Amino acid sequence: MTREEFSPLSVPYISGRTRLYGIVGHPIEQVRSPEFVTHEFVARGIDAIVVPIHVVPERFDELMPAIMDIANLDGLIVTVPYKARAARFMASLGPQARITRTVSVLAKRAEGWIGEMFDGVGCVAALRRRGVAIKDKRIALLGAGGAGSAIGVALASQAPRSLRIIDPDTARASAAVNQMQQAFPSFDVAAGESLDLDQLDVLINASPVGMLDPTACPLQVNHLPPHLAVMDIVMKPDETRLLRMALESGCKVVYGREMLGSQLTAVVDFFMDR
Amino acid sequence: MTREEFSPLSVPYISGRTRLYGIVGHPIEQVRSPEFVTHEFVARGIDAIVVPIHVVPERFDELMPAIMDIANLDGLIVTVPYKARAARFMASLGPQARITRTVSVLAKRAEGWIGEMFDGVGCVAALRRRGVAIKDKRIALLGAGGAGSAIGVALASQAPRSLRIIDPDTARASAAVNQMQQAFPSFDVAAGESLDLDQLDVLINASPVGMLDPTACPLQVNHLPPHLAVMDIVMKPDETRLLRMALESGCKVVYGREMLGSQLTAVVDFFMDR
Repeated sequence: MTREEFSPLSVPYISGRTRLYGIVGHPIEQVRSPEFVTHEFVARGIDAIVVPIHVVPERFDELMPAIMDIANLDGLIVTVPYKARAARFMASLGPQARITRTVSVLAKRAEGWIGEMFDGVGCVAALRRRGVAIKDKRIALLGAGGAGSAIGVALASQAPRSLRIIDPDTARASAAVNQMQQAFPSFDVAAGESLDLDQLDVLINASPVGMLDPTACPLQVNHLPPHLAVMDIVMKPDETRLLRMALESGCKVVYGREMLGSQLTAVVDFFMDR
Repeated sequence: MTREEFSPLSVPYISGRTRLYGIVGHPIEQVRSPEFVTHEFVARGIDAIVVPIHVVPERFDELMPAIMDIANLDGLIVTVPYKARAARFMASLGPQARITRTVSVLAKRAEGWIGEMFDGVGCVAALRRRGVAIKDKRIALLGAGGAGSAIGVALASQAPRSLRIIDPDTARASAAVNQMQQAFPSFDVAAGESLDLDQLDVLINASPVGMLDPTACPLQVNHLPPHLAVMDIVMKPDETRLLRMALESGCKVVYGREMLGSQLTAVVDFFMDR
């Protein structure tokens, strides 16, 4: 009678020693950090996992500090709709987060929690990997929420010719414009109401329109000019209706997962305090 | 330029759709439910994972209801030292838990959380799988905590000749004895202070002594009579000092993981409400 004979079968990827990370959002099914960021941990030989944590909005203020107090949980990623609300639970903010007042990645340090915003840098890096130029280009950004405003700030630092920000919440669009004008005083940035697509070089959807809904599209058109580069930060479906239309129109496209992919090294470095 | 070319690498075992389960304890490194119960989920084709959740005692009362409110978390396993404290967060208790007033497995149902105690049934099943008889046997149980008292109740239902319960907390040992005498009035159960090992058939360690400490042993002896069957519910190290001594003495031994292994089907059935 061997020891192994009576041993239950096990999976190799989780144990009592695995360090916990989570991504907090509402809804949660669309997030891709669990599969991608966990892969980055494992590739580095770190015994850690990123799990989806679905928190409903009316319970966020109570659950967030409790989740942060789980003793073997070392960090969190924050997604829609919590990138602004999560910032005030931080003891300190990184340089991007100090500008945007939003956070996307939170790390538990000896001196307390620190939050930083990686969406903007990730978006710019994804565009660069695809060879989409930003400098001197005319860019339109759909959505001025947590991700959108961070992307706007990161784009501004790359000196585009102009940036137009469109959000059905016009007060939010104006606030994002003001924030960018303060950070980059000579920058041509304005809130827009409609777009002349022929006068644009790059279009970025940073709104959740299209998330978990392959029929929804943030633009009410059926065709795009083929010179336009189109990025959609929505993670699921992988190919949103906007990107499908862009592909059919002959545009260069950049997928939402690429924004996450291009920031994986930076995010895990931040978690590991490197 | 293919879509895949720019896709980050991913792990296959966690995604935004994976349903969450956790094991709550203090300490947490020793738990084995993450690897074993997750395997049982996966073997049934269920996209779910059991993660370790380390909650320190002074934060338990605040964190427990918050963790239970995570919207994609469907169940919890409870280990040392929370098997009694967790019971009062339940809307209802299963039949074993109603006797012991302790819980080891908690499931979120439409009508609220229900808790049940599987340790006792799991211990008896593990002994049976190893061919260790209980009926008419003289049994000693070390430890009258959440797991120990549940194991005592489950043993009592199998009609042993006698049961001696030993715990340095003598009030706790007496309470466990009283609980069993009420449930099984004619049963020969008593709290013990010392053991005559030659007059015993089965010895079960249900205390945490030896957990994460391969030098600690709940018995201050160097040898055991070879006729004795010895079980240790400690999960880590796999082979505790007590079990090593038992093996060296020629005793039949039963490992802690076998208690978990023998209840996997029942636990996942309970989670799935089958």
